[in-house]
Amino acid sequence: MDNNILYQLRDISPKQQAGLTDYLSEFLLPERNERLREVLNLRTRQLTIVLEDLFQTQNISAVLRTCECYGVQDVYIIEGQNEFRIHDAISMGASKWLTLHNYPYTSSSKVGCIKQLKQKGYKIAATLPAENSYFTDQVPIEEKTAFLFGTELLGLSEEAIALADYSVKIPMYGFTESFNISNSVAILVSHFVEKLRKSSVNWALTEFEKKELLFEWLQKSIKKPHLIIENYLKK
Amino acid sequence: MDNNILYQLRDISPKQQAGLTDYLSEFLLPERNERLREVLNLRTRQLTIVLEDLFQTQNISAVLRTCECYGVQDVYIIEGQNEFRIHDAISMGASKWLTLHNYPYTSSSKVGCIKQLKQKGYKIAATLPAENSYFTDQVPIEEKTAFLFGTELLGLSEEAIALADYSVKIPMYGFTESFNISNSVAILVSHFVEKLRKSSVNWALTEFEKKELLFEWLQKSIKKPHLIIENYLKK
Repeated sequence: MDNNILYQLRDISPKQQAGLTDYLSEFLLPERNERLREVLNLRTRQLTIVLEDLFQTQNISAVLRTCECYGVQDVYIIEGQNEFRIHDAISMGASKWLTLHNYPYTSSSKVGCIKQLKQKGYKIAATLPAENSYFTDQVPIEEKTAFLFGTELLGLSEEAIALADYSVKIPMYGFTESFNISNSVAILVSHFVEKLRKSSVNWALTEFEKKELLFEWLQKSIKKPHLIIENYLKK
Repeated sequence: MDNNILYQLRDISPKQQAGLTDYLSEFLLPERNERLREVLNLRTRQLTIVLEDLFQTQNISAVLRTCECYGVQDVYIIEGQNEFRIHDAISMGASKWLTLHNYPYTSSSKVGCIKQLKQKGYKIAATLPAENSYFTDQVPIEEKTAFLFGTELLGLSEEAIALADYSVKIPMYGFTESFNISNSVAILVSHFVEKLRKSSVNWALTEFEKKELLFEWLQKSIKKPHLIIENYLKK
């Protein structure tokens, strides 16, 4: 098995899951175990970011870093003609702790991604400087929200806009007519998350999601986790 | 006179200032004149951004774009070993409408810049993930505030930190220990400005500052403004 391939919790029989998680935790220092669980409790899927065909890797990596800092667990990446690449110096390893959903370029990848988000209960908010767009602080935090961001030059595709439930924009007071993409993401995420954490909305992951993610993070925190897991399962 | 060199309002005799501004305005379409004045009324110097020795031009340019979008008129740039360059594709021409204060690298440029800001009545807020830092939404908007940002890798210099009145940090909920610089600026500026605009704080420019800036913007909106000005002054 490749060193980089991780087991998923569903690969493990329900009877063995708790024991295996405890066993893996023994390979970490107590502070590290505590830190993993602390961050886990701050994770949210109440909002998510969908990037449509970005081509500046600096921007993508800055987006991942901001999402990780704010506890936004999921990022959806719809590839276009630009293949997706992470710029490690800028993402500062943030992608390791996120769940990245990649949609390689096909004629239906955009529609597919957005439809799947709708099935997961997300409202789709297209970021768009339109007349009737909501402002940042008008977006309802009570609903699970997926914010769609388009390319640096062309903005969102018409397909993506057509599928959105509504649009949202950042207030602008100057001559410049748009923000840098990663800066827009930072502004939107910071306002949404700060409001969320002060609210009574149940934004945390479910207990099952936490178990799944902890299992993943534990494996990413130790060397050759698959050998340790296989050893445990043999016992 | 070089085409790019602009007259300043103080070069013009007080008697001629209003007439000359009207005269320059005649060279612009009515909508453009209206737009200039509309944006002018949204400009603020209640906060400013100080960049210490950034070396990623993409970051600097994204910062300028965000400041312009939010109506933050002044940006201070303290050069270090990295010469300051604007990345035009990213700043989207934002720097044209801002007042950039450049401090070329010398052994005293940092201290000099910060002391001048204090003389102008600014409180100095060092952005720093320290234990006792204020959080973004605790920064008092009633005081003129200069936010200091350090280099991408090393953060702020000890000299700059020592001169600050207090420090400020963005709340972080993940493993990553810092934001991309331009994203931090975007988050801080957006929270400060949004609060400011909803408050009763007198954040607008003074009438004299507005006149000065309008005179500059008019010149930047027409071709060969110096010829037009010289022609007017001869009359």
